[in-house]
Amino acid sequence: MKEIGVGLLGFGTVGAGVVECLQNNGDVIAERLGARLVLRKIADVDLVRDRGVKVPAGVLIKDAAAVIADPQVQVVVELIGGTGVARKFVTMALEAGKSVVTANKALLAKHGAELFKIAEEHNADIHFGASVGGGIPIIRTLRSGLIANHVNSMYGILNGTCNYILTRMEQEKLPFDKALAEAQAAGYAEANPGLDIDGHDTAHKATILASMAYGPVSLDQVYVEGIGSLTDVDIQYALDFGYRIKLLAVIKNIDGKVEVRVHPTMVPLGHMLASVNGVFNAVMVDCDFAGRTLYYGRGAGRAPTASTVLSDIADVAKNLMVKAPRRFPVLQYTLKPPMMRPMGEITSRYYLRLALKNQAGVLAKITALLGEQDISIASVLQKEIGTGAHVPVVILTHKASEAACSTALQKIDALDVVGAKTIKLRIED
Amino acid sequence: MKEIGVGLLGFGTVGAGVVECLQNNGDVIAERLGARLVLRKIADVDLVRDRGVKVPAGVLIKDAAAVIADPQVQVVVELIGGTGVARKFVTMALEAGKSVVTANKALLAKHGAELFKIAEEHNADIHFGASVGGGIPIIRTLRSGLIANHVNSMYGILNGTCNYILTRMEQEKLPFDKALAEAQAAGYAEANPGLDIDGHDTAHKATILASMAYGPVSLDQVYVEGIGSLTDVDIQYALDFGYRIKLLAVIKNIDGKVEVRVHPTMVPLGHMLASVNGVFNAVMVDCDFAGRTLYYGRGAGRAPTASTVLSDIADVAKNLMVKAPRRFPVLQYTLKPPMMRPMGEITSRYYLRLALKNQAGVLAKITALLGEQDISIASVLQKEIGTGAHVPVVILTHKASEAACSTALQKIDALDVVGAKTIKLRIED
Repeated sequence: MKEIGVGLLGFGTVGAGVVECLQNNGDVIAERLGARLVLRKIADVDLVRDRGVKVPAGVLIKDAAAVIADPQVQVVVELIGGTGVARKFVTMALEAGKSVVTANKALLAKHGAELFKIAEEHNADIHFGASVGGGIPIIRTLRSGLIANHVNSMYGILNGTCNYILTRMEQEKLPFDKALAEAQAAGYAEANPGLDIDGHDTAHKATILASMAYGPVSLDQVYVEGIGSLTDVDIQYALDFGYRIKLLAVIKNIDGKVEVRVHPTMVPLGHMLASVNGVFNAVMVDCDFAGRTLYYGRGAGRAPTASTVLSDIADVAKNLMVKAPRRFPVLQYTLKPPMMRPMGEITSRYYLRLALKNQAGVLAKITALLGEQDISIASVLQKEIGTGAHVPVVILTHKASEAACSTALQKIDALDVVGAKTIKLRIED
Repeated sequence: MKEIGVGLLGFGTVGAGVVECLQNNGDVIAERLGARLVLRKIADVDLVRDRGVKVPAGVLIKDAAAVIADPQVQVVVELIGGTGVARKFVTMALEAGKSVVTANKALLAKHGAELFKIAEEHNADIHFGASVGGGIPIIRTLRSGLIANHVNSMYGILNGTCNYILTRMEQEKLPFDKALAEAQAAGYAEANPGLDIDGHDTAHKATILASMAYGPVSLDQVYVEGIGSLTDVDIQYALDFGYRIKLLAVIKNIDGKVEVRVHPTMVPLGHMLASVNGVFNAVMVDCDFAGRTLYYGRGAGRAPTASTVLSDIADVAKNLMVKAPRRFPVLQYTLKPPMMRPMGEITSRYYLRLALKNQAGVLAKITALLGEQDISIASVLQKEIGTGAHVPVVILTHKASEAACSTALQKIDALDVVGAKTIKLRIED
């Protein structure tokens, strides 16, 4: 049977998963692929740590360039992460005409267009299924399964840490800090969870999805809000209104203008995305022909990510076997950038939680200021709570522009009957 | 730009959708594929009916064999349905070395293994993405996205008509007949909905999914129960216990024995499958590496099905362009049949609704008969209802074998304190 040589760069969690998957399921992969994937070399700075899998002596080395240069390595798998040496080695591999499989979302979000150009110039493949959604085959679905469609919109729950925290905050009525501590204790959150919590990990992934659908979107064009300032109070109010709060990547093409934003979002309880709990991820894609489809699974972790990396390796290997690389290349990525919609111009429904002085006529002032900006009210909730100086009043609005909402809130928050900055959440129905 | 000639057999709803998709999105498909898909010929018995799309004069003809024989037709798309002439023409196309795309679940469920053999002998492709799940790319995901995995189990909501009826029965507390009539009025159910309601459409699809994962399963190895005898009473009881009833295809491989069954199933409300409402379909796949993934979308309809047919045509076209057919062929289908687990040996949790005489000691008799068969009780619900001769008592059991449950129910139903045949539903947690 024909052999295809694989070289790994980076022997961390995912790298060990890839080795384990090849060892456990190599036979069935070979049967389906018509060739055997053979692990030739792994490069990592740490030659001694126990990763729970055994590799033959001489396979694990320190020199990534040597892995790339090895004539027996046909597919280079980059699992280093980050945008430093990973970028250097991916470029080196592509320039040597070797096909690359990577799980590196930061690298693609920041340098995707550049790397896809290099791949094209050297007629090499670059597959990146595991960069978004871990074990969920969303990237390949956009590449091939939905090939006959234009994408209208995508909604993604793309960060398992955030989703776990939000689930626990709701189910156990925990404050954010406690839920985060629990996520860390359970191994679902890093010791330094900054990139997850502040929404930037989700933004990286949103950038990749948007670029596949519409052409290169750069990271700084993505509006990002994290979950760090969310309170269990708003989570419970959302439930009262029939919504669940999720950190959502929202990607839309409306009249040729693309918007990409990441923020806590209220989703109706009956919506499929509202049922995505714990560390699971999901992406809903709305297309002109396929309609709404949704893809759900584990967004991270050793085994699920390895499954996706292996499926990419199999694709690239097949391309090598038939001497025809770049099957369904991601053309959009190298097209001209799409027209972007500035954040002020997006429209949304809003949840507003106001702290209002408990006196007659106050709500009339608020609704007047909203009305001035053409923002109409869908529902209001004021519970009979306590006797403090200020009472919480929650308003759900109909659709309004972000700019109108900001202007109204500036004026509202300047009123002397308003006791604190108004909490604003966006709603997607 | 290179052209790939496409011939359609059958110009019904899906055929018209395929033509419309090619007309609307042909440019973007060409850009992504690197070749233009050109509709050469369509065969249909009806040359005059208006399908809402225009085709050039001379394209629509009556003679399917002439479409297949046309040297300009490289991909034959079978959209006739059924197992009569469809089987004949698919065989004819494959034997002529032409690649086939089909949406025909009945054909594959009944003659899949035979057709895959013919395709293999003639080095031709046979793609069938639209045979299961309409617009959901589940077939290609099993082929390639999950290539590195063994499948532990699959759960599918695969019939939109049934799912719509169950959703309406629950939401509007409608009896079955009214919900069916509503589905027919809304165009979601055929005038003759037999194949849908009795579970056989779902069984066709389950046969295909199981055969892809484990080797050829024949339709008569599938246990099938439809939704025709379901009552809104049981739907409401299920809700009381925190479950929703779905017509589920359950496919499992436990210790090397495969079980494939289709029946109304209680699914926990928090489970993703419980959120699949209305005409939508979904498949949950549990794999050794990818873990649980789920695929959701419209399971039928002109545009979603066309989207999947076109993605198959694109794949087959690409294979022709690179002169390398049979990329990731469905090997399992031509392997030896798997060991099947007889229905009596499957294990499940059960919901039992009994009609019991309202007198002391009756429940003790029931639990004793269950206990004799090693069936232990998880919970019991008896509401204070009316003063009739018999009261409904609902029991949820722990896991037991189907044979044990049947034996116990035979004995229970023979008791003179039992007023009607006990209703049994299976539970999947």
